[in-house]
Amino acid sequence: MVILGIDPGIALVGWGVLNSENGKTRVVDFGCIKTTSDMKTEDRLRSVFLQLDEIIKKYKPGAMAVEELFWNTNQKTGIIVAEARGVILLAAKLNGVEIFEYTPLQVKQAVVGYGRAEKRQVIAMVTSLLGLREAPKPDDTADALAIALCHAQTGSSRLREFFNKPTTMRGKLR
Amino acid sequence: MVILGIDPGIALVGWGVLNSENGKTRVVDFGCIKTTSDMKTEDRLRSVFLQLDEIIKKYKPGAMAVEELFWNTNQKTGIIVAEARGVILLAAKLNGVEIFEYTPLQVKQAVVGYGRAEKRQVIAMVTSLLGLREAPKPDDTADALAIALCHAQTGSSRLREFFNKPTTMRGKLR
Repeated sequence: MVILGIDPGIALVGWGVLNSENGKTRVVDFGCIKTTSDMKTEDRLRSVFLQLDEIIKKYKPGAMAVEELFWNTNQKTGIIVAEARGVILLAAKLNGVEIFEYTPLQVKQAVVGYGRAEKRQVIAMVTSLLGLREAPKPDDTADALAIALCHAQTGSSRLREFFNKPTTMRGKLR
Repeated sequence: MVILGIDPGIALVGWGVLNSENGKTRVVDFGCIKTTSDMKTEDRLRSVFLQLDEIIKKYKPGAMAVEELFWNTNQKTGIIVAEARGVILLAAKLNGVEIFEYTPLQVKQAVVGYGRAEKRQVIAMVTSLLGLREAPKPDDTADALAIALCHAQTGSSRLREFFNKPTTMRGKLR
């Protein structure tokens, strides 16, 4: 299963693609979509949409894992980030990619084993778990890989849970 | 000039199309895109995007006027409405439609002549100015027509201002 992780934003949209099979997860590619504040909002949204559309068409993920948005103290930033998240969800949906949402707490719990872990711990674990020579830059890219890893681990543990139950007790996975 | 007015939202996205020429403005069409809360967010966003894309391709507006988003006390509603506004701006941009943003105060000022006007006054003025038999329903549709009217009036008054100046004093319109 190819998993696309996304750290939503407008200036920086981190993305990471993992391949997770039989409990083994490897990195396929990662990067960061950038837009600048001198661009009009609609131009930034188009840029995020078109670049993400290209990434999805190239790697054909079966799932997109994206962080839930929490409210920012800066309302203006909050609105434009939510607008960007809208076009991110749209790009996945129009390409038929199933979307999974995780809170920062769930991501930290899955990657570090501790929901209140610091950012540098998350980045260190992502680097180590994926066998990378150095930490992915910028942090938004490392965060996107952490979100994809969270889905890889949560998905497989939920499958394990499911298949460990007696057949008669197997309900729907979600 | 064909103007598309949009009242952004997620459950109800009001839209109205006006034709404004030589200071005369007439209604072309109006309506409301609806999505329900039992749909997944990404399905609602796709529905808004595809329906708006169809409206834009049908009426080929030269401008889209859309209300600026102000922060809601309900954060969860605020995020999804901003996500919807993101796909609304994207639909316009991908179709090459120029986008203009107005505050509720500017819309009321343009339509009623008073920035603190009540909603029912705005709806009454929209109905009267556009020569409609009855108030457009729901209110979101009337609001969208008010936003389009605001652009028609603001645009033409700015053009008037521009052409009333001596040629040497004419700067850029915006």
